[in-house]
Amino acid sequence: MKLVKIMGSVTSTIKDDTLKGFKLLMVQTVGTDLDHAGEYFIAADTIGLGEGELALIVTGSTAKHTETTRGKNIDAAIVAKVDKVNLEK
Amino acid sequence: MKLVKIMGSVTSTIKDDTLKGFKLLMVQTVGTDLDHAGEYFIAADTIGLGEGELALIVTGSTAKHTETTRGKNIDAAIVAKVDKVNLEK
Amino acid sequence: MKLVKIMGSVTSTIKDDTLKGFKLLMVQTVGTDLDHAGEYFIAADTIGLGEGELALIVTGSTAKHTETTRGKNIDAAIVAKVDKVNLEK
Amino acid sequence: MKLVKIMGSVTSTIKDDTLKGFKLLMVQTVGTDLDHAGEYFIAADTIGLGEGELALIVTGSTAKHTETTRGKNIDAAIVAKVDKVNLEK
Amino acid sequence: MKLVKIMGSVTSTIKDDTLKGFKLLMVQTVGTDLDHAGEYFIAADTIGLGEGELALIVTGSTAKHTETTRGKNIDAAIVAKVDKVNLEK
Repeated sequence: MKLVKIMGSVTSTIKDDTLKGFKLLMVQTVGTDLDHAGEYFIAADTIGLGEGELALIVTGSTAKHTETTRGKNIDAAIVAKVDKVNLEK
Repeated sequence: MKLVKIMGSVTSTIKDDTLKGFKLLMVQTVGTDLDHAGEYFIAADTIGLGEGELALIVTGSTAKHTETTRGKNIDAAIVAKVDKVNLEK
Repeated sequence: MKLVKIMGSVTSTIKDDTLKGFKLLMVQTVGTDLDHAGEYFIAADTIGLGEGELALIVTGSTAKHTETTRGKNIDAAIVAKVDKVNLEK
Repeated sequence: MKLVKIMGSVTSTIKDDTLKGFKLLMVQTVGTDLDHAGEYFIAADTIGLGEGELALIVTGSTAKHTETTRGKNIDAAIVAKVDKVNLEK
Repeated sequence: MKLVKIMGSVTSTIKDDTLKGFKLLMVQTVGTDLDHAGEYFIAADTIGLGEGELALIVTGSTAKHTETTRGKNIDAAIVAKVDKVNLEK
């Protein structure tokens, strides 16, 4: 899984039928300082998160196997809200 | 999914039989400013988009599961036209 | 597989049901000097490792096929504790 | 798919049985100028291409699904010869 | 496939049951000069190679489909020993 911060969302009218009903969030990987900006993904929200929150995403074929994304044409899905990152000092 | 801008297309006469009939678009990932040029993909168009438009692509095995790409030898497919990107100020 | 060092862990209350019960470790790829910091992953621990230890992770669909992760929505899993890296001088 | 240029080939005597009979080409991703050198792959040729030609490759599990590569232990395969790249001025 | 050089190996006592019996080699991608050091992988050896030799690896789900790795929790496997790289002058 990748640790990401929710940056925003995208709005789409014309899209694959299986994407309908999903909130599509723009997420960005973060480093150990939780601030460093890395790679972007557009991920299907399966939990109900807002901007600025930390989350875990799964990518690839795994993203099509959560309860709400099963069989959908999705390759990135949020699977957890992250409360705390515990790093050794 | 990745947020991309349509940059052009490729023309191919000799190709895998399952690719016939698809418009193959050259797409490039964009950053939060929607301008920064990132990684390139050649993606099968399943929607009918033109150059300069923003879209979402799926990559990997997911690209073989849309209604029009099922079972085709495709590893990148456009699945949505993006109307608007909403980023927190 | 990727050679990683355990850097810490993440705590999550709201998450996909299939992730419950797994310790989610923050791991970072290391170079030949075993110190150079590379890419981050959040990986499900299937062995019981602590911070600072070296491990191997599998990523992608393979991560859903270990005895404890079968069918879980996981795309990175620890599959071995590394005792020693043997590099030619 | 990725847009690549054929750079050469590799010769291998000892190899997985399912790789026998395939010409294994060294290909390199190109940028919009069709010259910029990017990432390398060794791809199974399914078309019959020569050095300097432009092609499309599929990577990952998709590469095991063309007519000639079905069930073979291949994760990169050439699926099209590219005649022309059409980029907006 | 990726063209790699064998750099060493890793020793592991505590590991996933399906990894037992495999020699786990540290391999590094090489560039056209066959010297440039790129990305690292730990790959299951299915051929019997030693340090300094050139090889091809498959990654992702393909690595679980060779005769010896079928159904094993492996995402990188050596599938060929490379005798010669033929690059256009």
